[in-house]
Amino acid sequence: MGRKKIISMSVIRRLPKYHRYLRELLKNDGDRISSKKLGEGLGFTATQIRQDLNCFGYFGQYGLGYNVNELLKEIGGILGLSKEYKMIIIGAGNIGQAIANHIKFQLYFKLAGIFDVNPKLIGLEIQDIEVIDIKELANFLKATPTDIGIVCVPKNNAQIVTDMMVENGIKGIWNFTSVDLEVPEEIILENVHLSESLVTLSCLMNSRTYL
Amino acid sequence: MGRKKIISMSVIRRLPKYHRYLRELLKNDGDRISSKKLGEGLGFTATQIRQDLNCFGYFGQYGLGYNVNELLKEIGGILGLSKEYKMIIIGAGNIGQAIANHIKFQLYFKLAGIFDVNPKLIGLEIQDIEVIDIKELANFLKATPTDIGIVCVPKNNAQIVTDMMVENGIKGIWNFTSVDLEVPEEIILENVHLSESLVTLSCLMNSRTYL
Repeated sequence: MGRKKIISMSVIRRLPKYHRYLRELLKNDGDRISSKKLGEGLGFTATQIRQDLNCFGYFGQYGLGYNVNELLKEIGGILGLSKEYKMIIIGAGNIGQAIANHIKFQLYFKLAGIFDVNPKLIGLEIQDIEVIDIKELANFLKATPTDIGIVCVPKNNAQIVTDMMVENGIKGIWNFTSVDLEVPEEIILENVHLSESLVTLSCLMNSRTYL
Repeated sequence: MGRKKIISMSVIRRLPKYHRYLRELLKNDGDRISSKKLGEGLGFTATQIRQDLNCFGYFGQYGLGYNVNELLKEIGGILGLSKEYKMIIIGAGNIGQAIANHIKFQLYFKLAGIFDVNPKLIGLEIQDIEVIDIKELANFLKATPTDIGIVCVPKNNAQIVTDMMVENGIKGIWNFTSVDLEVPEEIILENVHLSESLVTLSCLMNSRTYL
């Protein structure tokens, strides 16, 4: 692919699912897959698969389908998974600890630090990383350029710690609080609003007619 | 509202945000709000707000805007927040514990039980609820009708525990594993794929042109 193409958010949101499925596929079976099989595995139609992959200029070979390894590399490239991302977690409470323990399963993301304000948590080791006093955050970021900051603090402190991270060079914020954080336009913000997800579930349970 | 209307998923996904914002509003200020102000608070346009609320037959009063309390009740009703949902967590590891501690902030969801297979976790108290042996799950669900099951187990066990819950009357599954669970059509499944969210973040950071 020479020129970069505009890819819609809805396709972007499906790509991690492709990536995850193709990685499983590579571990387990063959090296080629048809759009029909790929669709069955992912719960999409073959037409949807072909449209999605055509979006970024990737076409299967007629009668042979897609080369799993090539497709994985291509999608990994688009997803930015050709480099390693340094991350820090702000807030070493339950959610922060859960994420710290979860990230070890990821190949592309490296946890560089965990910060908290609570003296009882400072010094604790999670995944071989010591929880550091939040007062050290600015110095840490100056010494260790970091890509992503994960916000797991109580909501009253969420904007403050986000501002501190953005001022010190963080480019992406992964927000686990229910606060709508304000960030400069060039900063990428991804929200995991757990309460909203739960409320969506109850809403759909409440009435199947709202579909 | 007499007859139920079909509301699109994109509106449904926005409603929890409305609900959260209106609850804050009710605590802090006045009892009426214009679509313009509501839009500013939520980051939507006034037109979007009016379209969304018109969807379920709710119209502001010209020049007076919306009655916050009424609107909150109306949206709460659509979201199914007029009743209490009983929930259980399967898997008392990091994510399970984080969720158990998070749910206390919710008004409409009551945690009824936490289950695990690990003898080290069985008997542990989280939010005054004792972790129970997973072997007791079917008996528990027979005695305590439960609405929602939260899946926080390692991925190899995700489908098995889901099947057990569905067989015993659970109507909604909140899935925190990376597995694409299979459930009967009448069961509502809501996924929180943390890895996919993180990969979306890195994708957007990798290139602002993919928008």
